[in-house]
Amino acid sequence: MSDSLGSVGLVSTERVVVGTDDDPLVLASGARIAPVEIAYETYGALSPARDNAVFVAHALTGDAHAAGWHEGAHRPGWWDNLIGPGKALDTDRLFVVSANLLGGCSGTTGPSSPNPATGQAYGPDFPLLDMADLVTAHRRLLDHLGIDRLHGAVGGSLGGMQVLEWALQEPERIDRAVLVAASSRLTTENIAFSAVARAAILEDPDFHGGRYAEHGVAPRHGLKVARMMAHITYVSGQSLADKFGHRRDTSGAAKQLAADFEVEHYLQHQGESFLDRFDALSYLHLTRPMDYFDPFGAHPDVVPSTRFRLISFDTDWRFPTAHSLRIRDRLLERGVAVDHTEIASPWGHDSFLLEPPGYHELVRSFLH
Amino acid sequence: MSDSLGSVGLVSTERVVVGTDDDPLVLASGARIAPVEIAYETYGALSPARDNAVFVAHALTGDAHAAGWHEGAHRPGWWDNLIGPGKALDTDRLFVVSANLLGGCSGTTGPSSPNPATGQAYGPDFPLLDMADLVTAHRRLLDHLGIDRLHGAVGGSLGGMQVLEWALQEPERIDRAVLVAASSRLTTENIAFSAVARAAILEDPDFHGGRYAEHGVAPRHGLKVARMMAHITYVSGQSLADKFGHRRDTSGAAKQLAADFEVEHYLQHQGESFLDRFDALSYLHLTRPMDYFDPFGAHPDVVPSTRFRLISFDTDWRFPTAHSLRIRDRLLERGVAVDHTEIASPWGHDSFLLEPPGYHELVRSFLH
Repeated sequence: MSDSLGSVGLVSTERVVVGTDDDPLVLASGARIAPVEIAYETYGALSPARDNAVFVAHALTGDAHAAGWHEGAHRPGWWDNLIGPGKALDTDRLFVVSANLLGGCSGTTGPSSPNPATGQAYGPDFPLLDMADLVTAHRRLLDHLGIDRLHGAVGGSLGGMQVLEWALQEPERIDRAVLVAASSRLTTENIAFSAVARAAILEDPDFHGGRYAEHGVAPRHGLKVARMMAHITYVSGQSLADKFGHRRDTSGAAKQLAADFEVEHYLQHQGESFLDRFDALSYLHLTRPMDYFDPFGAHPDVVPSTRFRLISFDTDWRFPTAHSLRIRDRLLERGVAVDHTEIASPWGHDSFLLEPPGYHELVRSFLH
Repeated sequence: MSDSLGSVGLVSTERVVVGTDDDPLVLASGARIAPVEIAYETYGALSPARDNAVFVAHALTGDAHAAGWHEGAHRPGWWDNLIGPGKALDTDRLFVVSANLLGGCSGTTGPSSPNPATGQAYGPDFPLLDMADLVTAHRRLLDHLGIDRLHGAVGGSLGGMQVLEWALQEPERIDRAVLVAASSRLTTENIAFSAVARAAILEDPDFHGGRYAEHGVAPRHGLKVARMMAHITYVSGQSLADKFGHRRDTSGAAKQLAADFEVEHYLQHQGESFLDRFDALSYLHLTRPMDYFDPFGAHPDVVPSTRFRLISFDTDWRFPTAHSLRIRDRLLERGVAVDHTEIASPWGHDSFLLEPPGYHELVRSFLH
């Protein structure tokens, strides 16, 4: 089906300053950050009534480049299968906004940005972020774009968590929210995996207390291991078995301690390639808000006007369907309109980036 | 119930040389090792007919000290709840033998043992082991003890895998085999977790290509992270939730990137304490044989005379019941007597070390 649908074509990432010394971004902790720059992209055109905007919130390691092609790129944006003319987020009708997260490392201000107090990278001096802060930054982007009200907000995984936080933080701003494979409360096991990833980074000798940039190094070993482990939790056991089975690169040759099975080489590649595009402190700062996330506890009396569409995947063992059912139940208790569907998909948590049957149709029908 | 049962009391670990220059241990790869020393313990008395011996095979990080107390120790052997007078492995009737694995680091020859060719620790020159080799070493121990035939062999996790290999390698030597939470073939996901643990160790800058002992260091960072991650796979999500929930040590205080939730401190403790008792190269050498393990493929025509009792646990997601069912089906295809029971237990894979209702009774009734 996708073949008959269009691409948003060539796009580029814009940047805008949304926090200044006169008007810093005030975090939930009380800390202030300025300047704050946000990297973002838009697809489609804002209607004269300014009523067709949909915000797309990216997951842990995403960026502003959700759709279309950057000049000379070898692959399109990370949600290109969802966003474009005729697609579920139909850019013939919708104005789609995608922005890199505060604390990230792909254009928006984060730990690797210069700290105005020193001229060096913030490093360990970057303030700890709350899920609320990720939303606060994007609210300012929408203000800049002159979008008072969102027709929709859509996010998968951490993206869905941001959308939930936003709907509770500004209960009148989002008409329709799509939360895919999201959670309102990590399990203890989720936190445990997150803790191991952070330990791998924090205790890497090249972390240097977070001042690795000043030392001209990076905690590559820890970040690679963190990514390799996390990747396992993003896919289903069945999809790994289907893709790699027990095939070895050295089949017939001597066994060895080093990577031999194809799945090992695959994880090595996932870990290595991640180092080129992601910063270790951003990884710490963007995983931690998930551990502490408890939006229904933080906003106990808020009844958003938003209508919710929740989607989960039957093989997702990072945020299984129980997470979505919990969100549904909390929203129903408050009288909020919400529907949930579990989609059959072989690919585990990462299904939110793919097209298991029925998934994109649910998003399309809910938003149109 | 355990309170009314006895302890085997004070025990100590014995050592015996089972491989010499004249009679080296020949590995499946063709490599030869000598000397080979094995650390072992025994509980109970060998009958005059020498027909009451039960071999206990330890899991990945176990050792020879399965039951009773070492002088001055603060805790008993790792399977003390199963072994003793009146217990499931009743030492009033059975002669129980437990030995540290070849490649281990608790008394049996392994990578940290001196390489006779250099006088230094083997380090990276220790030969790669196959599951068959772990058994080969223990066969020699039994020969030394004058035990031609085992009344039983019992093992959990990697221990159960050894028992299965042994029953296929010597199809007339073991009368009854108990495999608890074992596997005859790792899944791709199992291998993936194993691969991340090994990458954490192999790529730790302090690994020094396996010559860390010569450098006076150890890949502590990598080994700790490997253990923390592995620990998550040994327990159930529900048991983590029941034990730690979302409790924080700094509850009410500022959030932080470093360990804060109790489950994080728990994992930190698991990782740290492991460093005092385990060697990184042993970890590599004892995980790898599991990845390659395929005993039914390696012994295609063997029909052991052994009767099998398989036990799995409903919350074990490292080796779920499907692993045991696979073993059962392969044995049944060969006409081997086998029974399988799934035990309800909240504790995941580690249940094999604990006493969920029904488990020890199954072992007792099968062996007596």
